[in-house]
Amino acid sequence: MSRIITISREFGSGGRELGKRLANALGIPCYDHEIIEMIAKENGFNEDYVANVAEKSIEAAYPLTIGHRFGMQPFQIMDQPIRVAVTQRRILENFAKQGDCVIIGRAADVILKDYDPLNIFVYADKDSRIERCQRRAPAGEHLTAREIENRMKQIDRNRAQHHQMYSDNKWGDKGSYDLCVNTTKRFVKDLVPAIAKFCEDWFNSHG
Amino acid sequence: MSRIITISREFGSGGRELGKRLANALGIPCYDHEIIEMIAKENGFNEDYVANVAEKSIEAAYPLTIGHRFGMQPFQIMDQPIRVAVTQRRILENFAKQGDCVIIGRAADVILKDYDPLNIFVYADKDSRIERCQRRAPAGEHLTAREIENRMKQIDRNRAQHHQMYSDNKWGDKGSYDLCVNTTKRFVKDLVPAIAKFCEDWFNSHG
Repeated sequence: MSRIITISREFGSGGRELGKRLANALGIPCYDHEIIEMIAKENGFNEDYVANVAEKSIEAAYPLTIGHRFGMQPFQIMDQPIRVAVTQRRILENFAKQGDCVIIGRAADVILKDYDPLNIFVYADKDSRIERCQRRAPAGEHLTAREIENRMKQIDRNRAQHHQMYSDNKWGDKGSYDLCVNTTKRFVKDLVPAIAKFCEDWFNSHG
Repeated sequence: MSRIITISREFGSGGRELGKRLANALGIPCYDHEIIEMIAKENGFNEDYVANVAEKSIEAAYPLTIGHRFGMQPFQIMDQPIRVAVTQRRILENFAKQGDCVIIGRAADVILKDYDPLNIFVYADKDSRIERCQRRAPAGEHLTAREIENRMKQIDRNRAQHHQMYSDNKWGDKGSYDLCVNTTKRFVKDLVPAIAKFCEDWFNSHG
């Protein structure tokens, strides 16, 4: 069976960077934003819309209609978040069947439960996450610490809600993960070699 | 400054074994039950009594009087839990000053905060912890799963309460630790080499 590593992460914790570097260290692919692109392409939806649905619960996604194609019937619009969820599940399962990989976000830890993934959660304290967001901000973006904090809260709330669609286990609750890594005041790159070893040993010693 | 690694753990998670093996892998001492022995010896207390106080809050420890020496005045009995706490702090600080080490439990993560320790939390799901307790039970002890579960809950409640004496951070809340390791269905020994590497890299990269 494939060795699947899932990365769940608090916004601003450096989880995406950790996942990409980990995949690189292990020499396996990392799936991240391409999942959104694939869902959007397959269904003819706008990528922003898909990203929004994929990070929210189906229920919360209903009021959004920016993704609908011109001339759609109301029942088709209502149907969209479900199509996103169904496509997402199929894409994740295809990745899992193709071979070892790292998957970032998208509730892959619970959607791919039957593949017995190694689930990692990446987190950091508030100040450290705000500082990381400011350092990584795209050119021209100058949000205040308060604005970043509000955005962090909103995004993490959406992630928790999305996770809840698939599992009773609470998003971010350590019991749902095999390893939880605190990146507060650390450089992600310094943590990766040991986590890569953890993953290798984990799968090598697995029954 | 010394490299201090603290291990906090849920009862039955294999945290003590992990701490001992980790210290061994890193070639540094591991302090565990000897802390209790030292506190008991210094104060002329019973070891069981000290273990009890050291795992509870001062308040909860007051009704216990089994540790008092014959002929003590009531004010001296009331004073005992505080003496345990004071001695514990001093002993932990002495360990920290002596050099690199692993310390198991005793709220060392917060008591030694100024030494910037690497704090690890070890946990596992309920069934896995019960199973580990049964496997490790002393000869002649035959507790039912329900009895073990009740004991686990009681001990972890005491640990949480003891931790609360020293910190507002909640015992077991991942934000209070640098690394949280889930030992569910794993052999602790398989996890140690990667965690040892994590510790080495952590201190080597610490600015």
